[in-house]
Amino acid sequence: MAEQTAKFATRRYLMGRVKETTDLVAVEEPLEIRLQGEPFQVLMRLPGLEKELALGFLFTEGVIQSLSEVITLHFCGTATDPLLPPNVVDVRLTEAALARRGRRHLEVSYSSCGLCAKEAVSEICRKVAPVPSNLAVTPEELVALMARLEESQTIYRDTGGTHGVALASPDGAVFLMAEDVGRHNAMDKVLGRALLEKRDLTALVALLSGRISFEMALKAIRAGIPILAAVSAPTSMALELAQELNLTLAGFVRGPRLNVYTHPERIGTVVSSQ
Amino acid sequence: MAEQTAKFATRRYLMGRVKETTDLVAVEEPLEIRLQGEPFQVLMRLPGLEKELALGFLFTEGVIQSLSEVITLHFCGTATDPLLPPNVVDVRLTEAALARRGRRHLEVSYSSCGLCAKEAVSEICRKVAPVPSNLAVTPEELVALMARLEESQTIYRDTGGTHGVALASPDGAVFLMAEDVGRHNAMDKVLGRALLEKRDLTALVALLSGRISFEMALKAIRAGIPILAAVSAPTSMALELAQELNLTLAGFVRGPRLNVYTHPERIGTVVSSQ
Repeated sequence: MAEQTAKFATRRYLMGRVKETTDLVAVEEPLEIRLQGEPFQVLMRLPGLEKELALGFLFTEGVIQSLSEVITLHFCGTATDPLLPPNVVDVRLTEAALARRGRRHLEVSYSSCGLCAKEAVSEICRKVAPVPSNLAVTPEELVALMARLEESQTIYRDTGGTHGVALASPDGAVFLMAEDVGRHNAMDKVLGRALLEKRDLTALVALLSGRISFEMALKAIRAGIPILAAVSAPTSMALELAQELNLTLAGFVRGPRLNVYTHPERIGTVVSSQ
Repeated sequence: MAEQTAKFATRRYLMGRVKETTDLVAVEEPLEIRLQGEPFQVLMRLPGLEKELALGFLFTEGVIQSLSEVITLHFCGTATDPLLPPNVVDVRLTEAALARRGRRHLEVSYSSCGLCAKEAVSEICRKVAPVPSNLAVTPEELVALMARLEESQTIYRDTGGTHGVALASPDGAVFLMAEDVGRHNAMDKVLGRALLEKRDLTALVALLSGRISFEMALKAIRAGIPILAAVSAPTSMALELAQELNLTLAGFVRGPRLNVYTHPERIGTVVSSQ
């Protein structure tokens, strides 16, 4: 099985000190599900249990009603299989199940199929420009902005059921915020607000209450946001994309601590270094 | 603006006691984005900032590159507008932006457009059968199973970047578990595993490390899982669907405490009641 965790270099800030270290992150890779040899769906997933994922997906999306509707189910996790690329599950279904598949789509963002994360990142890099901004922010400013995001999550405080995203200038003079039941929506809402207000997105930091997946990093990059900071962990593919497209990614921004994984040159001076 | 939180009756278990109370949950409603009057995408979202969400989504999906490509942008949050249904954002784009929209799809699960949550739930109820099982579990068993899920999340422990889902019999004799960077994938993986092992899904409890959205509840219902318990909060639409389709939903299963929102008859006897 492919690796499920990967080691990334990280610059850790804690109480005014900075330390170069490494951090384990969860691996994120595309998986293409094919039906009768035709591309049907691409899922971004942690490697492992690929046949199970394809089966469960077809089951809970209402395409198959039982295992008896699956004629064959193949997965090859290596690049050496002559018949099937890696990161592809090939499923053959009965005619009855096929008739239930409905209209599906392959995501605009990664339309080439059967790619591994590295290839998918390369393909995106051919289509999406790197973030041009030289914006700088200090660790102290990031921590303060994250605290302000937390304070402003009123729906979360009432329900525990939402994520929050903020766009802010380093000094906090600009601070736009949105909550949603989905992280992607919260990000799209604040970006839409910033567009309507004709804000310069290259001068703003994005702050998330949750984790940073590949898709969240891509949204920031497409918007031209130079710095994305989150309370929780990034995935491997988010880091690979951020590295290539000049996005500064910070994770585990909690109290006095934070990790900077990519492009730390945008994170300003600190008191001392060890 | 539509309400962002809703009050639901809940049965709270704490230290062997049970209390009938209410809990605030985040509202989840479909939002349809139309381009030149044609359905383009349905997002499940927290009400509020609808025009911003549509704009941000089109921007971060690479359809529009700036606000100048948007000719008109309409949203009507009430049922009284003669021209536009509620829960629809109607966007008119320039030809250049339209050419970038790519192939999109409307989800199989809620293909009728411009519906509110209540209508969408009704439509699903016409197509999906209620969960038939009479499985019972005690609060103590749920808490023990959740502790076991937490113990078994090894990738999460290493990275902080994954969610876990388990399927288990109340006594823990069956315990299948998967982790993934996405909650939906983790659910599909364990369900796929259970299908391959030919398990009776109506005899299993599903346990989640995160929140319960509408889509997570629908996956459980389609699989015939009778009880879904999560560490965190359910959304309003998850609760409405669970109520209609006979799924027992428990949230905030943390240590000795848990909330049961729907079909508490499957949660076994407790020591005392107040």
